Order: sequence, then C-alpha cells, then structure tokens
Amino acid sequence: MEEAQAQSKNALKKAEKQAKMAAAKAEKAAKTIPVVGGAGKKANDSKEIIGITVSKAENFPIWYQELVLKAELVEYYSEISGFYILRPPAMYIWNGIRKFFQEKIEEMGIEETNFPMFLSSKSLEKEPRDYVASGSKKYIKGVSNILSDREHVEGFAPELAWVTKAGDKDLEVPVAVRPTSEAVMYPYYRKWIRSHRDLPFRLNQWNNVVRWEAKQTTPFIRTREFLWQEGHTAHLTEELAAKEVLEILDLYAAVYNELLAVPVVRGKKTENEKFAGALWTSTCEAYIPTNGRGIQGATSHALGQNFSKMFDISVEDPEKKQDKIHVWQNSWGLSTRVIGVMVMLHGDDKGLVIPPRISKLQVILIPVGLTAKTTPEERTKLLTQLDELKSTLKKAKVRADVDTRDNYSPGYKFADWELKGVPLRLEFGPKDAAQAVVSYARRDTGAKGTIPIANLATEVPELLETIQKDMYNRADESFKSHRLVLREWEKVVPALDSRNVVLIPFCEEPSCEERIKELTKGQEQEPGPDGLKQPTMGMKSLCIPFEQPDIIVANETKCLNPECGRFAKSWTMFGRSY
Amino acid sequence: MEEAQAQSKNALKKAEKQAKMAAAKAEKAAKTIPVVGGAGKKANDSKEIIGITVSKAENFPIWYQELVLKAELVEYYSEISGFYILRPPAMYIWNGIRKFFQEKIEEMGIEETNFPMFLSSKSLEKEPRDYVASGSKKYIKGVSNILSDREHVEGFAPELAWVTKAGDKDLEVPVAVRPTSEAVMYPYYRKWIRSHRDLPFRLNQWNNVVRWEAKQTTPFIRTREFLWQEGHTAHLTEELAAKEVLEILDLYAAVYNELLAVPVVRGKKTENEKFAGALWTSTCEAYIPTNGRGIQGATSHALGQNFSKMFDISVEDPEKKQDKIHVWQNSWGLSTRVIGVMVMLHGDDKGLVIPPRISKLQVILIPVGLTAKTTPEERTKLLTQLDELKSTLKKAKVRADVDTRDNYSPGYKFADWELKGVPLRLEFGPKDAAQAVVSYARRDTGAKGTIPIANLATEVPELLETIQKDMYNRADESFKSHRLVLREWEKVVPALDSRNVVLIPFCEEPSCEERIKELTKGQEQEPGPDGLKQPTMGMKSLCIPFEQPDIIVANETKCLNPECGRFAKSWTMFGRSY
Repeated sequence: MEEAQAQSKNALKKAEKQAKMAAAKAEKAAKTIPVVGGAGKKANDSKEIIGITVSKAENFPIWYQELVLKAELVEYYSEISGFYILRPPAMYIWNGIRKFFQEKIEEMGIEETNFPMFLSSKSLEKEPRDYVASGSKKYIKGVSNILSDREHVEGFAPELAWVTKAGDKDLEVPVAVRPTSEAVMYPYYRKWIRSHRDLPFRLNQWNNVVRWEAKQTTPFIRTREFLWQEGHTAHLTEELAAKEVLEILDLYAAVYNELLAVPVVRGKKTENEKFAGALWTSTCEAYIPTNGRGIQGATSHALGQNFSKMFDISVEDPEKKQDKIHVWQNSWGLSTRVIGVMVMLHGDDKGLVIPPRISKLQVILIPVGLTAKTTPEERTKLLTQLDELKSTLKKAKVRADVDTRDNYSPGYKFADWELKGVPLRLEFGPKDAAQAVVSYARRDTGAKGTIPIANLATEVPELLETIQKDMYNRADESFKSHRLVLREWEKVVPALDSRNVVLIPFCEEPSCEERIKELTKGQEQEPGPDGLKQPTMGMKSLCIPFEQPDIIVANETKCLNPECGRFAKSWTMFGRSY
Repeated sequence: MEEAQAQSKNALKKAEKQAKMAAAKAEKAAKTIPVVGGAGKKANDSKEIIGITVSKAENFPIWYQELVLKAELVEYYSEISGFYILRPPAMYIWNGIRKFFQEKIEEMGIEETNFPMFLSSKSLEKEPRDYVASGSKKYIKGVSNILSDREHVEGFAPELAWVTKAGDKDLEVPVAVRPTSEAVMYPYYRKWIRSHRDLPFRLNQWNNVVRWEAKQTTPFIRTREFLWQEGHTAHLTEELAAKEVLEILDLYAAVYNELLAVPVVRGKKTENEKFAGALWTSTCEAYIPTNGRGIQGATSHALGQNFSKMFDISVEDPEKKQDKIHVWQNSWGLSTRVIGVMVMLHGDDKGLVIPPRISKLQVILIPVGLTAKTTPEERTKLLTQLDELKSTLKKAKVRADVDTRDNYSPGYKFADWELKGVPLRLEFGPKDAAQAVVSYARRDTGAKGTIPIANLATEVPELLETIQKDMYNRADESFKSHRLVLREWEKVVPALDSRNVVLIPFCEEPSCEERIKELTKGQEQEPGPDGLKQPTMGMKSLCIPFEQPDIIVANETKCLNPECGRFAKSWTMFGRSY
C-alpha cells in the first residue's frame, strides 16, 4: 500500500516536473512561432494545426497556454515579457462580470472614482515612517506586500515599476505605477471624510495595475499588468465595516457561481495568508481538479483602523462629541484572474467551454448537408431558413449567429466553435428542414438531440440554463469530493498527491502553518536537465471556511500537525495552490 | 472707431493676462488650502466659502478651476503635478458617455480589446527606421507627435514617461507608458489580419494614457494622464475606411450635441493641424463664448496606408489574386476632455449646469417652509410626502432624490445643488402641499413655477427635455452668432478680440497658416511682474467645415491673408484656441 502510494507520488512529481519544463518551452515557442493564435483562418494552409495539440490531463500547463492563445482570449505581448493582450472574447467575459458587479455595488450606494496611476516616491517614504512612529509596523508588510522590504530605507518592493524619466529629462522625484491604490487614495480620504455624516464613504475604481512579478507569469492567473476593480470604503464602526466585507465577498462568490459556473469556498484567511495591511481577509477559493490545486478567487479585506490611524482619517464621535474615531476601512478587489480560473476549470481537450450566461455567442448555427449536388436555390433557401432561426433566437434574447463561411467544411466549423467554447451548436440541413427540427450538440457534454423549430424560442433558452447549471453542479461535485476532511496526519500528503485539498483541525499559529508547508513538501526528485533538484510543493492554508465541516471541541481537538501539540481553533482548508 | 477697437483690445489683453496670473495663483492656493473641495460639509464652519468666489465673465480661468474643485468633479493630486483625481460626479458623466458610445460601436460590430500600457523602446527604435527605409518620414512626425524629434536617434519625444526600473533593478530595455497605442497595437494587426476575409478589422479600447505635458495643465482639458477610448480599424479600401471615419465623427458629434448639449462644427483639419500620422483628420470643434476660443472636441483619423506600409499589414487582393493590398486604417479617440468643454460652456457664477440627460441627479427635492412652529408630526408628514414624490419620479424614470439633511437651511441646500449643477430643483412645503403642487426652479435659466402633483410624472420628464434642448439651442445660437464669415482681412483681429471665431477663404497652405498665426498675434503688452512681455495668442485653423458658408470660386476667390496671393481652396474656420 505504502509502496503503491510512493510510486504514484513519484509518478505525479515526475509528470509535474515534465509539465513545468514543457510549459517553459511552449511559452518560448509561442513567442517565436509567427501565428500561434490564428488557427483556422486560412483554409488552404493544411499545415496549420487546428485545436489543442496536448491533452488537459497529460500536460495541464501546456494545454492551458495553447488554449488561451488558440481560443483567442489572449496574445502574448512579445515586446515585454509577462504582459498579455486581452482579445475580444476575453474582454467580453470581463465586461459581463464588470456590468454584473457594477450594478450590484451601485445598488449598495458605492460610487465610482478614478485616481492617478502613479504614486510618488515621496508619499511612499513619508507614510510608513509616520506609521512606524505611530507604533505599528503592519504597513511595512502591507499594501499587498509591495513594501515588504521597507525597512531598508531605499529598498522599495521588487515589483514596483518606476518612472524615472519624462522624455529625456530625469524626474526630480520618481513615481511608481500603482500596484494597488491604498497609498494613492487614503490621503484624500483624510481630506474628504470630515464628519460622521460622510460615512459610509465608499468608492470603487476599475483600472489597471502593475506588479513587476519575478515569478513566471501565466495568462490571467499571474501577469505583470492586470485589470481589476478596487473598492475602498470607510465606516463608523467595526460592525458596519465587517458587514460590508462579507456582502462584497458574496458578490464575488456570485460572479464565480452564477456567471462563471465555478464553485468556491468562502472563508477567512489565516494570519500568514491575509493581506498584510488588513485586520482580517475574507476570500473565496476555487479548485482546479486537473492538478488538485486551490486558487484564490477574490479577496475582501477588513482593514480595521490600520490605515486610518496611519493616514489620520477620523471623525468626531457622534455620541461622545469630544472623542475622535478613526474610521474602519475595507478594501476589496476582483481581477481578470477570474477568467483564467474559468478556463482552467471548464476547458477540455477540444478547447474552451464557456458558461452560457457569460458567453458572447451562446448558440452557433451551422448549415450542414450541402453537397456537390445541392443547387444554388436550395443553398440560398437553407441560408434564409438559418437566418430565420437566428431571428427567432434573437427575439428570445439568445445571442446567436450563423456561420455562413463558404470556405470551410461543417466539420472544420464544429471544431472551430468547440475550440472557442460556444455552449450550444445547432446544425441545420435539408434533412432537418424536412422534419422541421434543428439538431443540437452541447459543448459541455457533447450530448446531441433535436429540437422542433416550433419550440426553439423556449427550448433553447431552457437548454442554455440547463448547461449553465450542469456545468456548475459537475464542478461543485468535483470540488466537494476533493475536499477531504482528515483526522489523521498520515493521510495528508497522499490526499494532496491524489489531487485533493484537505480540511484539517488547525491551531491557526503562523509558525505551525510554516512548518506544515515544510512537512508536506515532497522529497527531492531526481535532478532535471538543469542539474537542480526540486521538491514538490508543500501545502498552504487556503482559508478557514465559514462553513465548518464539523465542530472543534475547545481544549480537546488537537492541531493535526503531529509536531504542534496545540489545540485546534478551526477546521482549515489546506492545499497545494497557485 | 479704430481707437475704440484698440482700447477694447488692450483691455481684453490686460484681462487675459490678469486671468493667467490669477490662475497660477489659484492653482497654488488650491494645493495648499487644506479643504477647497469640501464646501458645505460642515454647517457650523461659517468661515468656509460656499460657491464660487469669482465671476465667470471676470476671471474665466479661476472660475473654472474653482468650479471643478468645489463641484467635486476633480481633486488636485498634490503628489504629482498635472494629475487629477476624477470624483464620482465626473465619473458618472464619463460613464454615461462611455455607455452611449459603446452601444453605438457595438452595433457597428467593433469589438473591445485591451493592450498593455507599456511600449518597449526597442519597438520604438525599430519601427521608424523601417519606415524611413520604406521611403516615408511621416511616422517621424506621427503618433500624436510623440516621435516628433525622432530624427535625433536617442531623442524620444519629451512627453513619454519612461519606466527604467522594476524594484531596485534597472530594466534591460526601458519601457514607456503609452501616449496612444498605434505602435503598441499595429504589430499585432499584421499578425492577425491575414486575409481580406478578416476585414474590416475593428477594435476599440477604453483606457488611460500618459503624456507628460510641459505646458500648464488644466483639469480635463490638458492633463498628464487622461481616460479615453481609442479605436483602431483596418479596411480593404480607402472608401470603406473614409465612410467609417465620418460615422465615428458623427457619434462624437452626437455625444456633444445630444448628451452634453454642446454644439460642434464638423470638418477636416488642415495639414498643419491634422494628426501627423494621418492621411487626413476629421474633427468636431466646440466654442467657448466666455473667451471666444475654439476647442477641439474629438478627432477621427483616416490613417491611409501610412501605418500599414510601415508595419506591413497587408492582404491578398480578392480580385487580383497575386497582388498585395496594404490595408486602409483609421484611428479615433474621445477623451475626458469632453467634460471640461461641457463645464466651460454651461457653467455659471453659481456653479455647474449639467444637461439633464447626462446628470446623475436630474431632480433634487427640497423640503421648505418648516419653521420653529412646525410640529414633529407635520415634519414627518412632509418628509413622507416628499418620499412619495420621489417614488413617483423614479417610476417615471427620473433620477431624483430628497435632500433630508436637517443641519442645513433650504437656502444653503439651494446653493449647494446649484453649485453641483442639478438641472431641476423641486421645493415642497406645507403651502405647496395645501395646493397639491410642487414649486420648481430650473438650474439653467432660474425660471420658476409650479407643477400639480397629479402631473408630476409627465411634466417633469418634459421639463427636463426642455431644459436639455434649451441649453443646446442657446449654445448653438451663441456659437452661430460668433462664427463670423469675413471677406476683409482688417476685420479678423477685431473679430477675434470680440470673442469670435472666423471663417475666411484660405489657400490651405501650411506656410500661409503659419504666417496667419504670426499676423494675428497681438502686439506685446506692458511687461508683467515677471518682467516678460507676452503677445496675445495668434489664431490657428480649427477646421475646414464640411458645411461651407459660401462657395469658393475656383481661380477667383483669393486667400484672405493679404501677403498670400494664392487662390483660396475653402472657407476655413480660424480662431484663438485651446
């Protein structure tokens, strides 16, 4: 049994390593092959490979990289590494999410703002010093760790992009591109928030931020520039702030669940994993079954009074007039990473699978059954009928189009639209016309059937909703069955190796969490071609789920780390992760 | 007569100069006064000045700067000069414009993209060289003049912001923040456009760009970072491209006319004023009556094959299979400048005047007539009735709110909402209630009256539309009466001094245009406190209006410049301008 486990573990490690090397190769290749993303544009060019060349199960990283390129979600920006061009299909998804979220926060009374993209090195120098003077060093680790090495006076965080010149003149004071906007915005919150009547004070902005990552980048998941929204709010009391943190978290979960058909687990980050400037961080965590990794979906932070004390954002206490209250702040952000999570979860060896609610094109109509014997009249008639079907669908608020390209075969078109993830394919030929039906094929399951034309306007919207729900339910079942509740330490690493995340009783101590990461690292593998030995990834905490799988008996349930000995405070979800 | 003109001219010059100096002072003051934008937040603080302290007619620049701050459209970003924070009322207007324009271009089939914000110095070096090699130097002046001094190998344009460091490491290759995205995008157009079937190829992006202006900045009008949309399209023929250029120009004009109630003149830019990379540039030009200046509203460029030849963006000729066609490209952009034009045109000494269609709040309901004798019950009843009025308006799709603040007098509230430009004020007190009416006051004209409550749902929307149209019509009449068609050179400068723009027969020669600018500069004024003498601004061409005021007789009508002697090609609109 143990041997078998060890073998499977080794095999997995080997596969992982191969995947990593292949991924690096693929990225290189993607940058040098002139037209990677253009599959299917020239029918005559038989050398071009249509569709994905590797299997998701066999080589997940390469599969992902090929997919986002070939489905035309992104293009590598070869001029500067770590940057990606977002193409229309990706922007459509992002805009759908934006619209959904924007409507919800407008209803909450949150207004939109737009702050400059640069922060001055002067303000960066000033703030932490004040903050340190005020007795706390939290901000030193704060603002998304950008200032993590602040203690070295000149040592700004490694991922800040610095503008030092305008034209050929050196700037007197260099400015950094925002990696997030706390330090840009909060001096103005101090100015604008003058009375408790100004609270809650709630602004959001949709923008781009830059973090010059040293780690390898992956489209959507980790990029040096990304689009996001960042909300920054201030409240009179801790309770009111906390309420909003969770309301926003629920909206983020709704984006994942309702639009992207991605199940998430809501919870709180541990001390080690929370936003360094926050009092506590709430998160929704997704799961990628193919490699068993957890992935942070979006976070909503209760900043407490950390920043308001540093920036002196305060109001007069409405009850005790002489007292000053430092406001309770929150910040929360959702980025284009969501698209990557959706692609990783739902995509398959044929390409993207986009949930209907967020898909630009929900139905693609394809003429079939045309042969060399078809007369021009018959052909025209079929195309006219297809146009009518499209109109019927449009009236039923279905986003539909007809693929009228005459230089491609139906088979080619099937593959092309499967690659692009259109949820439902409708085929229509003379035989269908004779029976007054259309034939369908679901993108998610491949299931086929027919729909009477008379029922098109009702059955297609229903089928799209069924697809949406089925996609969610399958993913949800998969996540549930791979969230193992463990009471024995020995089962942890095998569970990870079998692509699970685990829920274990945990003391919530940072040092214990560090130790758990160490303990769950695999042994070093055979050295690769680079001569370096690489251990498999240890697990880190993903969140302390709000929905606990079982009770923790105070002063009885022990932390699962065999070296720890402390009592557990919660069931905490751990996993290998992005 | 001449003396009188000279006097008025000198008086105007003096006023202009004073205004400039005062503007500089105000900007400085704005940055040092702790709370300029917070008028009206603390009722008890009687020292605070509510509303604008200078008159639009007397000191336009200061008036503008005070207004945008006090109406909370912007906040100065004191950390870095030339940058401004866009506050919610400004973002609301921008988002309204964005939504309007986005819907229109979606209907046209234009898709959304998002390119990285950086361009590599490598690509900047490469492209122009190739282009020079290909025989043209247009690009050298191209891309919004950013490369205007390209001929000096290392001399990049003065307004590019250069990122040279990430963290504390120097970048191997510096990258510049996009000032516009031609050079970022077109290498990919080459890659993506592979066949005439891919045409038209049309992408748009909404983003932020940076131009590190040396000139003095003004909120919205000239800023170092601004929001805009940039459309970049490619077509098979010159005709198809030209058609789109004008379709987009019409949309820009619609934004001004229909949303912002700003009349514009559509036309073509002269060679001197066109986008340097373009074949020709179309524009819509607005007019600010207070100082008689023209202001460029938005431009839509026919790039011809200038860029497609440089970047080698070509397709096979669908008719002559062996031939290669370089695509015909357009680019077009609309920026947050539109907000500044609207503020300048419609604002008055009381504050902003926002056209109803684009105003976040269309109606503000204010309780009046409450006295010391009012019982709490009467008060509650009135507020309940106001809430009902609000509901009625909301059902009629009017954006309305009640000002229930109990720490401000009605008079204070009137001034506050006038400052913020809400188009219609509805007052409601016990006397109104007794008569079953509401009293109204129009923001644009100050006109007052009553509306029976029973008619609220119909009359208020009508009144709002009337306000919208009246605002446009007044501005249109003003622009029309200040667009002087001149046939005598001697009248030109006096016309400018009387705050007009002029339409004159013009040869369209760049050198003649330069000379006209020189000839219309005023004489030097008395030296100011800085010891420098400053001439008044000469006029430049605004556009060659599509709608010509009269015919130009070929080989007969002369260019109006008395030194020119060439025949005129068109009536061209000239003016002092932003």
